[in-house]
Amino acid sequence: MPQLNRQILLVSRPTGAASVDHFRLVDTPLAALADGEVRVRNHYLSLDPYMRGRMSDAKSYAPPQPLNEVMIGGTAGEVVESRNPRFAVGDFVVGTLGWQEFGTSDGAGLMKVETSRVPLSAYLGVVGMPGVTAWYGLNRIIAPKAGQTIVVSAASGAVGSVVGQLAKLAGARAVGIAGGADKCRYVTDTLGFDACVDYKAGNLPADLAAATPDGVDGAFENVGGALLDATLERMNPFGRIAICGMIAGYDGQPVPLAQPALILRSRLLVQGFIVTEHLDLWPQALAELGDLVAQKNLLYRETVTQGLENAPEAFLGLLKGRNFGKQLVKLI
Amino acid sequence: MPQLNRQILLVSRPTGAASVDHFRLVDTPLAALADGEVRVRNHYLSLDPYMRGRMSDAKSYAPPQPLNEVMIGGTAGEVVESRNPRFAVGDFVVGTLGWQEFGTSDGAGLMKVETSRVPLSAYLGVVGMPGVTAWYGLNRIIAPKAGQTIVVSAASGAVGSVVGQLAKLAGARAVGIAGGADKCRYVTDTLGFDACVDYKAGNLPADLAAATPDGVDGAFENVGGALLDATLERMNPFGRIAICGMIAGYDGQPVPLAQPALILRSRLLVQGFIVTEHLDLWPQALAELGDLVAQKNLLYRETVTQGLENAPEAFLGLLKGRNFGKQLVKLI
Repeated sequence: MPQLNRQILLVSRPTGAASVDHFRLVDTPLAALADGEVRVRNHYLSLDPYMRGRMSDAKSYAPPQPLNEVMIGGTAGEVVESRNPRFAVGDFVVGTLGWQEFGTSDGAGLMKVETSRVPLSAYLGVVGMPGVTAWYGLNRIIAPKAGQTIVVSAASGAVGSVVGQLAKLAGARAVGIAGGADKCRYVTDTLGFDACVDYKAGNLPADLAAATPDGVDGAFENVGGALLDATLERMNPFGRIAICGMIAGYDGQPVPLAQPALILRSRLLVQGFIVTEHLDLWPQALAELGDLVAQKNLLYRETVTQGLENAPEAFLGLLKGRNFGKQLVKLI
Repeated sequence: MPQLNRQILLVSRPTGAASVDHFRLVDTPLAALADGEVRVRNHYLSLDPYMRGRMSDAKSYAPPQPLNEVMIGGTAGEVVESRNPRFAVGDFVVGTLGWQEFGTSDGAGLMKVETSRVPLSAYLGVVGMPGVTAWYGLNRIIAPKAGQTIVVSAASGAVGSVVGQLAKLAGARAVGIAGGADKCRYVTDTLGFDACVDYKAGNLPADLAAATPDGVDGAFENVGGALLDATLERMNPFGRIAICGMIAGYDGQPVPLAQPALILRSRLLVQGFIVTEHLDLWPQALAELGDLVAQKNLLYRETVTQGLENAPEAFLGLLKGRNFGKQLVKLI
């Protein structure tokens, strides 16, 4: 009897809000490895907002997730069988093996990581794609100067938490926007942001104005919608806005921008980016982020959901901001 | 009896649409020149969309026009009296002497121009602020490469007409958006754009798509609103949008941007700019533009309204796109 591999497939596409019905859990027999292949037991699956875009077949920067195939996703795990000389059983690796317990790969896109200084799961967050996303947008688009005010939305999340901490390390004033008093307390008391605005409190424009008395010089946008509208109103002349995510509009109708004329009034630079298009900078970014984590100068928090079967529900929660820090699924 | 100077003052601020009632024509006696001063008989007054912003006291990049003072505006004229050694009677000068027949200046901001190669009025348009605006946004933000497609709104206007012609000279494909078949014909047949879309024909998104089969790599935005929405949908990855004007929203409520998520999807750079903040580049830009005009490699068109008393009506027409090319008022 071949071993079974639990997998989650995307079986339909949402027209409005995504639901668990778009996913199906299946058990698939594992085929024997071909020459050059390696088998990985995934320990962690990463859940990220970009996946919502892949569920849709609307025009995007990436092709849609094919139907009836294993849902795309970043993974961290351990090599359990290898017919590839680059990998040995027991190696820890990160890759994009998808929503399944076992991944089979020819080694392309699989990176060995060492887990003595940095925990395995962190390679899916602060020392992985979300961390590099924060690093790139902050350093290459916002380029904060000491004393400037930087605002980041989804500030307790995998990306936002790194943005604010890196901004502080650069001598800037970091102001977060997060949903709920608990998240805001974490952002200021644990992560060390100078201020955090709870957008769920219902006074976002006024609260953000109070938290940014000198205006805003740089903004890192993960959410869009009302949060971006409020931030735009606070921008100082020549401010920079890095557009990393528009999660507010991922799950339904496009969310307009209320006052685009502010881009002109304040002579802003607004730039969208996708971190996987800047792979040349990843080694530098990952090295810096790994050092900071090892030195405890860069903190992070994870929400870990147990069991592959709970991944769809956890993903939908992520879209609604129910996670607290990096959302992972533990598979083992 | 001192000589009288006809002037137009701003006497109230619009809450919705601007009207002629916000202006008042007055006759004011001319004072004798003080030492260091120069008196200019204005030949031409320039009307420009930015003036709408100055009529309002909403927060802006520039202070509002004070009430009951001569309305701000660029002027070109001739020195008729001088107690300043830098200027002699008969010199032609451009400056910002406002909506009045005679301007009195200490010489600051007054520039002598020669009218043998370039007509005096052109220094208010193609070889003046609008021309430099086009030059800056195209060369410093859009930076077109040969073969790329550049879209410009208000394409028959003082700025847009220069943008498209400079884009063509750079080897790019120039596509205009203008209001009406006459303007579009001028843009393609006279100015040499590759295509022009008439937004008044009612099929802007489809017509723009047909005119940009390879998408859009750079956009120069003078209008905003539905024109910017349609352009955003056509942007290619890594496209650049120079935001020069948002005239669609100048005269009333802010006009939203329908799909800001496209900035992320297409990894766009969107940048607002004010050309007077880049004075270091004006000499280079003006020299290049003057040469091109003298060589007949850069064409322009003017709508000349006769008489200072007609300036308010002409200005309101400009906001509605009733002008055709650079809007001037001839004062002599």
